[in-house]
Amino acid sequence: MPLADLIEHLLPRLPGDALVTDPAQLLAHARDAAPFSDGGTPAVLALPDTPEQVSHILRTTYELGVPVVPQGARTGLAGAANAVDGCLLLSTARMDRILAIDPANRLVRCEPGVVTRHLNEAVAPHGLTYPPDPASRDRCTIGGNIATDAGGVCCGKYGTTADYVLGLDLVLPDGRRTRTGRDTVKGVAGYDLTRLVVGSEGTLAVVVGATLALRPLRPPALSLLARFPSLTTAGDAVAALTATGYVPSALELLDRATSRAVHALGHPLMRPDGAATLIIESDGGDPAGELAEMAALCRAAGAAEVTVAADPAESRRITEARRLVTPALAAVAAGLPGDATVLVEDVAVPRSELPKFIGTTEEIAHRHRLRLYTLGHAADGTLHPAVVFDRADPDESHRARLAYDEIMAAALALGGTTTGEHGIGTLKRDWLARELDPASLELQRGLKRLFDPKNLLNPGKVVQA
Amino acid sequence: MPLADLIEHLLPRLPGDALVTDPAQLLAHARDAAPFSDGGTPAVLALPDTPEQVSHILRTTYELGVPVVPQGARTGLAGAANAVDGCLLLSTARMDRILAIDPANRLVRCEPGVVTRHLNEAVAPHGLTYPPDPASRDRCTIGGNIATDAGGVCCGKYGTTADYVLGLDLVLPDGRRTRTGRDTVKGVAGYDLTRLVVGSEGTLAVVVGATLALRPLRPPALSLLARFPSLTTAGDAVAALTATGYVPSALELLDRATSRAVHALGHPLMRPDGAATLIIESDGGDPAGELAEMAALCRAAGAAEVTVAADPAESRRITEARRLVTPALAAVAAGLPGDATVLVEDVAVPRSELPKFIGTTEEIAHRHRLRLYTLGHAADGTLHPAVVFDRADPDESHRARLAYDEIMAAALALGGTTTGEHGIGTLKRDWLARELDPASLELQRGLKRLFDPKNLLNPGKVVQA
Repeated sequence: MPLADLIEHLLPRLPGDALVTDPAQLLAHARDAAPFSDGGTPAVLALPDTPEQVSHILRTTYELGVPVVPQGARTGLAGAANAVDGCLLLSTARMDRILAIDPANRLVRCEPGVVTRHLNEAVAPHGLTYPPDPASRDRCTIGGNIATDAGGVCCGKYGTTADYVLGLDLVLPDGRRTRTGRDTVKGVAGYDLTRLVVGSEGTLAVVVGATLALRPLRPPALSLLARFPSLTTAGDAVAALTATGYVPSALELLDRATSRAVHALGHPLMRPDGAATLIIESDGGDPAGELAEMAALCRAAGAAEVTVAADPAESRRITEARRLVTPALAAVAAGLPGDATVLVEDVAVPRSELPKFIGTTEEIAHRHRLRLYTLGHAADGTLHPAVVFDRADPDESHRARLAYDEIMAAALALGGTTTGEHGIGTLKRDWLARELDPASLELQRGLKRLFDPKNLLNPGKVVQA
Repeated sequence: MPLADLIEHLLPRLPGDALVTDPAQLLAHARDAAPFSDGGTPAVLALPDTPEQVSHILRTTYELGVPVVPQGARTGLAGAANAVDGCLLLSTARMDRILAIDPANRLVRCEPGVVTRHLNEAVAPHGLTYPPDPASRDRCTIGGNIATDAGGVCCGKYGTTADYVLGLDLVLPDGRRTRTGRDTVKGVAGYDLTRLVVGSEGTLAVVVGATLALRPLRPPALSLLARFPSLTTAGDAVAALTATGYVPSALELLDRATSRAVHALGHPLMRPDGAATLIIESDGGDPAGELAEMAALCRAAGAAEVTVAADPAESRRITEARRLVTPALAAVAAGLPGDATVLVEDVAVPRSELPKFIGTTEEIAHRHRLRLYTLGHAADGTLHPAVVFDRADPDESHRARLAYDEIMAAALALGGTTTGEHGIGTLKRDWLARELDPASLELQRGLKRLFDPKNLLNPGKVVQA
């Protein structure tokens, strides 16, 4: 199918600037932020404005047999938005309107291209908030959040994207439109298509509109930072907090190497020694009282030093340490010879297995002579062990890849999952087959065939049809 | 397929008392608690003890082409557990073991036959709770709760069953076993089969085990009862509470007829006059303070009388009024001539539409000369308008059925759903086709065929294959 044919079919019902074939622009859109992931060469980039245009594009590509890769902000970390050869890249960037804010029913209707942070800024004046807070919230879009079921720091307490999606406007792979879900808080009419599409990484349908639940603005939060002499004592503190019934709004665990990297960036509260740092945030009714009790639990578990914020400014200084992890790892990479890069893993284990699991990852990194930095959402067991390695060095790249796989195997062995919040994409497709049993895997493939019988929508992502 | 053949195939691998063909017992198990719903004559009742026995039963029925209807406690209100002609009734009643309580990870593993109330009693000593609280919690089972995505009074704040199911052990219609989900709080590996099975009313797979998330025990709650001169003023109070950011743990609305019926049963706080009663419960950090502010909002909205509980005993007296609704309607029915019965509807509308919707239902009941009693979970927009009618009177029965359908149409017209929490079963199957668009309905049917290509598991429920 020559490209000229496709464009000739598409053009009549699209704005003049909605199709891009400039190779430089195509290259700029060819990949998301995933390392080690397969990616192909796109044929054309489409930038539709409306659901009708998306429907027209998919009807056309379906007839002509052209693969389509939907894209949000390409901040994904699993390759789900990577091009496949000869595909049409379907960007939702121009569909960025907030359609209605409904405070009486605590919901918002928006298009997929709305940036997550903008959504929150728009609903805040109504005393409302959209809690999911992926690290990329300043750039990522609601459509991408839905595609990946994006989580974040506060999700141990507030849940992930899936918990806020009430209904979806979809375009199916053949161009037909459908609406799932409802505007009501509850509803059980039929199988839950909404939840099936959330987290499906653009392989079942293209989201062209979403109805999202909102919550009252979160109360002001306060934070503490606790430094521990060992991972075990930090794990004991997490267990003690859990047993006492606390549900912190953030509970972040930094291992020794990560703590040191943030210290090296100049954060005043971090120390070069200490095997683990916990950053705990409370936005309960009495955050100061809760933090005082949690500080006592940290000390009882063996914390060497606990700093409790007395006011929001001190609190911000503490949570800044968490925010600095990504820049700190980038600084580590920048300071190394060769072409060093950061490979961020994304696994989850049952909370109780966190210390054991981190110990295992340290052993894996040591054995492969790799620099490992582990950051975890301890509230929900999601961990992001990061390997900093030189991608110009084939041997080190190979060892990084081996370690990446061994870390996933270790997570599965402890009853965990190979992806806590980043998704399967192309990066972990082979691992999905190891995580699921044969009957589940067969159902996954069947679901893909049901929605996309020609295997044209984001083919090769999540499952092989 | 003669029954003797089926039994001969099943018996060798089941306990001697696991198969029941006694007509009286079959009749006792033939239907759930739904009114107006189709039901057939079962051939045999199976009471397996283990997942292996369930797998053996389904492998056998699949080979022989025998339909299977899974059953929990048959407290369902949509006919999903009603027999179909010649079916094997698969009861999970004997699979009632709690397998593991894991406080460190705040989860519990159990079999499907565990009674919801028993689960809560078992986890309470660990400082934990399983929030969903369907009205039938003293009898209904976790398996049935999962099949229907059961909700309840506190679900506006705490969510429904689906929000607590982390993973499922399933037997597929052909007898194969599979496991969905995980033991971790988060995880995005593949399409969400867990959520697809929750609420599928036993049509996709049989749940033989569940991993459920728990929460810390809820703080002690306090309640208030407010009487309003009109539905509009009660609706204004609900809107004011919502706008102020309160998330009450219960927010129940009783209309005039329901308030009167509870008064007639002798509840000391109810009055025969007043167009609407709100019962509000708070289990926030400072329930007394919250209730005082909510009481002020109720008065500002026009409440004629507000009673705020000062202690748990007074609080129980208030929430007792809510609990008395079902006995009160039964008393109304018992006091009528003929064979009076209560037909409970289950719809949901956006919260803001509650007063308008209740007004519409009153108009419908008046036009059809029917006794209507409306109770609503105002926190989430779910409403249970109940018609008390004489089922021995064909004309009144006909009018009750017409009103039932008109109430559903009114809910859809206001952007609501035909079932907020009771499900589709056989009762609302035709309505599902009106609520969903053609593409969604086709996907629903495709999902059924994917899981159950021979259409043998609970056939005719939810969708026609």
